[in-house]
Amino acid sequence: MLDIPTFEDIQKAAERIQPHAHRTPVLTCTTLNHRFGAQLFFKCENFQRVGAFKFRGACNAVFSLSEEEAQRGVATHSSGNHAAALALAARMRGIRAHIVMPENSAKIKIAAVKDYGATITFCRPTLEARGTTLEEVVKKTGATFIHPYDNVRVIAGQGTAALELLQELPDLDMIMAPVSGGGLMSGTCIAAKALSPRIEPIGVEPENADDAYRSLQAGKLTPQASTHTIADGLRAMLSERTFTILRTHDCRIATVSESAIIEAMRLVWERMKIIIEPSAAVTVAALLENKVAITDKRVGIILSGGNVDLDELPWR
Amino acid sequence: MLDIPTFEDIQKAAERIQPHAHRTPVLTCTTLNHRFGAQLFFKCENFQRVGAFKFRGACNAVFSLSEEEAQRGVATHSSGNHAAALALAARMRGIRAHIVMPENSAKIKIAAVKDYGATITFCRPTLEARGTTLEEVVKKTGATFIHPYDNVRVIAGQGTAALELLQELPDLDMIMAPVSGGGLMSGTCIAAKALSPRIEPIGVEPENADDAYRSLQAGKLTPQASTHTIADGLRAMLSERTFTILRTHDCRIATVSESAIIEAMRLVWERMKIIIEPSAAVTVAALLENKVAITDKRVGIILSGGNVDLDELPWR
Repeated sequence: MLDIPTFEDIQKAAERIQPHAHRTPVLTCTTLNHRFGAQLFFKCENFQRVGAFKFRGACNAVFSLSEEEAQRGVATHSSGNHAAALALAARMRGIRAHIVMPENSAKIKIAAVKDYGATITFCRPTLEARGTTLEEVVKKTGATFIHPYDNVRVIAGQGTAALELLQELPDLDMIMAPVSGGGLMSGTCIAAKALSPRIEPIGVEPENADDAYRSLQAGKLTPQASTHTIADGLRAMLSERTFTILRTHDCRIATVSESAIIEAMRLVWERMKIIIEPSAAVTVAALLENKVAITDKRVGIILSGGNVDLDELPWR
Repeated sequence: MLDIPTFEDIQKAAERIQPHAHRTPVLTCTTLNHRFGAQLFFKCENFQRVGAFKFRGACNAVFSLSEEEAQRGVATHSSGNHAAALALAARMRGIRAHIVMPENSAKIKIAAVKDYGATITFCRPTLEARGTTLEEVVKKTGATFIHPYDNVRVIAGQGTAALELLQELPDLDMIMAPVSGGGLMSGTCIAAKALSPRIEPIGVEPENADDAYRSLQAGKLTPQASTHTIADGLRAMLSERTFTILRTHDCRIATVSESAIIEAMRLVWERMKIIIEPSAAVTVAALLENKVAITDKRVGIILSGGNVDLDELPWR
């Protein structure tokens, strides 16, 4: 049987991470409201610690460990925001973080993880090498593996963003977030439906990485072979757990083109004056492509992160 | 005798513009607080209507006009944020805005002013041509000239940003803002000193456009011949009025290098995930260059605007 986090788990997570994580602001934009004929409320997880919602889940997982578990540290494989998030959360608890990263990871990401004091183990850039290297690290250190999304405590932590948003705005008609492995969207569904049973949860992913869309259509987990998208945070695939949560919470999935992602990212930068990464732009891309009917609705949108290499902008 | 706005003028301006302007959020950043050893509170005027604080002053000026004056419209010369701000404020009141712009203005700025429904009159790109063209427009239309900064209602409007900031955070030790013509800094001084007599007001300008620094040093208005700076919003010079206000409010001026402005802009983008224009980055540049002693202090910083051409970033 799959372990699924409850709404109570999310409430406890909110208490647990409160001393460490930011309660991020909710921004609105007159121009975008006019353009889309709706009231949009942007939960700015790009302002979260490490620049992404990922800190919520990692922080909840790290601070849920028993003293004994904690002493052996935590481990994960990731080249992205989860690695930085786990490294920072571990430093805050004063324990070790072991991060397995592909040897071709961007220097800027390696530096961020090192800055937070984590121990990096490099591996060949294949899925298999990641897995075996992580197993070795765990075996050697006794560290607890914190999966980036297929983990109940991580999912509960990610759900705290929607919890905060709905505490502030209880009467939303819809809540939108990006979907990759489904950790954020799972937590969002559980929190939002508990607080507002009539709310419509909408996950958005790139057309080029649409395993969530295919899986929910087919009624069974349907992985995808290739995931070529500029939204580099959205290349992961649902697990049985996140798939089950999305399905049982009537989560709809919209998919968007690569060009709409870039257009949406630029639109948010220009009009809202905030920096979001391509992965965070997919929700606005879905509005640009009319993939979701939002006219006159009150729509919560979780802007998932803001980590962008300013020397490599996609509209150059 | 010079007409100088009072604190009551700023309070009235706040009421007047409240239905039209945004009450912008105040953001903090853990990383920058650690880096500078101080508590920094950023008043985000980059999120203001038209992307800059300029809307506050223009809005106060437009909505202060009598019905009779309003019917003849408003006029100004500007190629920047004041032009867009005046155009939008006029449209909100349902009156005409006549904007004199140099014929070599950036297309993107011309488009913004046109979008707000203003009438543009182009002139040759000299100070003299601006003045004579504006005079002709005013003569022909009877419009009221709204100077970008040498105007009591504009100054009172700009002061509402500091008013809001200090209402939220009454116990600041210092308040910093960019200085160009001195409209924002004048309003900031009047509001801040009225609410908190012990507060230190610090204006910042580029070394390459340091007329405020020179003027306050010399004790008399000291214009500058050339103003080559990437902070294109900071090329204007103090007027007798704004000079007098800064001097009588013990405003100190710090100056910063061009490279520090670019570094500060990038630092804010990367760490705070918000978009600010070079002119808004001078305050943070002053911290980078250790021009202001802020250790352990609570410092309010007005981020003045966020209008940047995303195809022309200064670190490219």
